[in-house]
Amino acid sequence: MTQGKSSNVVWQQGRVRREQRAAIFNQRGATLWITGLSGAGKSTLAFQLEHLLVEQRYKAYVLDGDNMRHGLNNNLGFGTEDRTENIRRVGEVAKLFADAGLIAIASFISPFRNDRATVRKLHDDAGLPFVEIFVDTPLAECERRDPKQLYAKARRGEIADFTGISSPYEAPQTPEIHVAGTTSPEQSAAQVLVYLRERGIIRV
Amino acid sequence: MTQGKSSNVVWQQGRVRREQRAAIFNQRGATLWITGLSGAGKSTLAFQLEHLLVEQRYKAYVLDGDNMRHGLNNNLGFGTEDRTENIRRVGEVAKLFADAGLIAIASFISPFRNDRATVRKLHDDAGLPFVEIFVDTPLAECERRDPKQLYAKARRGEIADFTGISSPYEAPQTPEIHVAGTTSPEQSAAQVLVYLRERGIIRV
Repeated sequence: MTQGKSSNVVWQQGRVRREQRAAIFNQRGATLWITGLSGAGKSTLAFQLEHLLVEQRYKAYVLDGDNMRHGLNNNLGFGTEDRTENIRRVGEVAKLFADAGLIAIASFISPFRNDRATVRKLHDDAGLPFVEIFVDTPLAECERRDPKQLYAKARRGEIADFTGISSPYEAPQTPEIHVAGTTSPEQSAAQVLVYLRERGIIRV
Repeated sequence: MTQGKSSNVVWQQGRVRREQRAAIFNQRGATLWITGLSGAGKSTLAFQLEHLLVEQRYKAYVLDGDNMRHGLNNNLGFGTEDRTENIRRVGEVAKLFADAGLIAIASFISPFRNDRATVRKLHDDAGLPFVEIFVDTPLAECERRDPKQLYAKARRGEIADFTGISSPYEAPQTPEIHVAGTTSPEQSAAQVLVYLRERGIIRV
């Protein structure tokens, strides 16, 4: 267990067991981690998944890269160190959601393999399912879409450390789910739901 | 809206409305913020509340000071600045839980009035209920209990910035719920549940 700077701190064991939560929620807590380039379609897939799950009375919640940066991570920038801390914090929050019995849908570029591995390990160590979803849209297509005009700014040098342009994206090698960038959000979401049923996170 | 260091970031509107979540969860998302000295009985009350709520099929989850410091906040110490950042982060996480439709039970010494006011404003601005619960156990009684032997260490000068000994505790002036330190955990929890029903966060 990481003690970090906090000595004199004792782990408090909750009184509610995970199985009790799962029975009440009718689902297992889990983290779905959506990674891919800016403009790949991560947020669209995340909100589509949330919509479909909640409609079926499952408890799901999107942790979105953009939204989190307005709150928890508003004191972080986009340099390598801050990106790593950004993902670390989100990973911890997703783990809390999963432990609380929810399906956390985390949608983050999360370009560095090591950072994603850290979040996965965090979940593995806690016995919580971690499902990596790679939205595999080619850079050229993301740049063509450029919904927020960020690639244009990055090309003009107005944004530093922009993933795919001036900062690397390390694609997942063995994600649980590989979504082709040309797949519609509806089809991608259906693909994920089938996986969640097979994995026993939601019921048939 | 706080932009902080994150420019080029656009707020993503989720597709699931808060009322839809409330209907499915049969409860309103909210944050219960338990404050008081070390040894006052905050964690005991928090886990008692979680136990009672989950038993009645409500969705509640404890965010505990000690536990959070092993994860999200393991890179923070106990100096004034780090204490403030500790509470800020927990406040943001509690708000996410409340927004997701859960009852977040945050149990933190949170000695500084300004820090608690910041978390309250965060919730007010988002239209989410924030319920401050002051577990009002006198310092002498906390020191007598001293379950983790922390007061003894603080008196010997082995812990710096210890609330009540070498760092101030600013008691809430108008908490939503004032729990006398001599009340049993069962009675305190019952007192909170009555409030939650009156406030419409859970049903009768």
